[in-house]
Amino acid sequence: MAEEHPNGEVTAAFLVIGDEILSGRTKDKNIGFLAEYLTAVGIDLREVRVVPDEQDKIVSAVNALRNEYTYVFTSGGIGPTHDDITADSIAAAFGVSIGVDPRARAILEDHYPEGQLTDARLRMAHIPAGADLIENKVSKAPGFRIGNVHVMAGVPSIMQAMVDAIVPTLKTGRKILSRTVDADLPESRLAQRLGEIQADYPDTMIGSYPRAKDGRFTTQIVIRSRDETPLANATAAVEAAVVEASNQTA
Amino acid sequence: MAEEHPNGEVTAAFLVIGDEILSGRTKDKNIGFLAEYLTAVGIDLREVRVVPDEQDKIVSAVNALRNEYTYVFTSGGIGPTHDDITADSIAAAFGVSIGVDPRARAILEDHYPEGQLTDARLRMAHIPAGADLIENKVSKAPGFRIGNVHVMAGVPSIMQAMVDAIVPTLKTGRKILSRTVDADLPESRLAQRLGEIQADYPDTMIGSYPRAKDGRFTTQIVIRSRDETPLANATAAVEAAVVEASNQTA
Repeated sequence: MAEEHPNGEVTAAFLVIGDEILSGRTKDKNIGFLAEYLTAVGIDLREVRVVPDEQDKIVSAVNALRNEYTYVFTSGGIGPTHDDITADSIAAAFGVSIGVDPRARAILEDHYPEGQLTDARLRMAHIPAGADLIENKVSKAPGFRIGNVHVMAGVPSIMQAMVDAIVPTLKTGRKILSRTVDADLPESRLAQRLGEIQADYPDTMIGSYPRAKDGRFTTQIVIRSRDETPLANATAAVEAAVVEASNQTA
Repeated sequence: MAEEHPNGEVTAAFLVIGDEILSGRTKDKNIGFLAEYLTAVGIDLREVRVVPDEQDKIVSAVNALRNEYTYVFTSGGIGPTHDDITADSIAAAFGVSIGVDPRARAILEDHYPEGQLTDARLRMAHIPAGADLIENKVSKAPGFRIGNVHVMAGVPSIMQAMVDAIVPTLKTGRKILSRTVDADLPESRLAQRLGEIQADYPDTMIGSYPRAKDGRFTTQIVIRSRDETPLANATAAVEAAVVEASNQTA
């Protein structure tokens, strides 16, 4: 199980499952959504992996991640087709059996017209033994949670609805506060002072993000902390550094 | 080093380095770009990881990936600021020294006005021993290649220019051909036949991708193969299955 973190830190990893992301055919929208959502509720997303629809790759990634982080989230591969192998792979990772879950079957029976719950659709009721279901308000076929692993659909609208269903069940950490300072300067003109400010304020994390825009380089500096006082002090120091650098000739 | 692959298969992994992607502050654009590019030149992108700006995380990911795949690409963390620790981390992963590279220094001296190559900017000339430089047409500060690992900037315009510079130096595999069939049906109505067609054509990979659009579900089926004949035959079978399913009542 995940290590205990000091300061009430709650960590997470996200495993995206799908050949279509790795071939570039589908552009992932779930990483950015989940990253922003978890940050907002005080959970630190610490790692993302994208793996193909292959059982050995899924099993080894799930087992590596669930042992290292408080929570693991997966997206993709829980539909009705032959290439949807996530549920079987998660069962293999946990060493548990998998079969038609009566709760999931009841949800699908309720959803499809009489006689339309084909074998293929019934695949979506295959849930590893011991798992809890995750509600799917969009298209009914549920996700599931087993241990610290939350298994969700890959279609963004369904994945997002599942995240909404899951988050109230999670323990969340102390939120990380942040301030952003925009500098109309390339980051090389700020780099030395930012390093000094980072050293002066060890309770903050200062990130510097260059942007190319209209052929010029600008920089966003993001200051993060769990405490308001060092955050405010470090932000003031960064703002002063930006003004100072702007007043110097390049 | 990477295992040899049968059938001339060339594989790759992509390591995205950056707290800003994991916090959701920056939405990654490099994964989709690289995935599509590598597919187009016949290199199979097999895994993506996103890790924070922390040396131990970068080192362990680089070492895991460079031993498993033909090529590794990284993006992010090679700028001039204190949070840019990718070059040091790559040197640590390879167990080599790192210092100011005279070739990289010459590029930066040529780029900046006399006297403007500050210590911070000179950080961008720190290159692990034994590495080759990767040209940066956009903002000059180079990336580098060491062993099978290609280290690139995170800013998309620079990263893309570096990919253009790298790809001609790579061995590429036999291209995977693909056909796409659009079905105005939810995938559960096609799932059983697609599984049968996949079994009939083992030299193809048939992927089924559900989409939610205007409250309805449609499906794209992508058929992939390295050979034209099984590709054409499997595609024809999928098209017939879509027509057949469309003619049945739901």
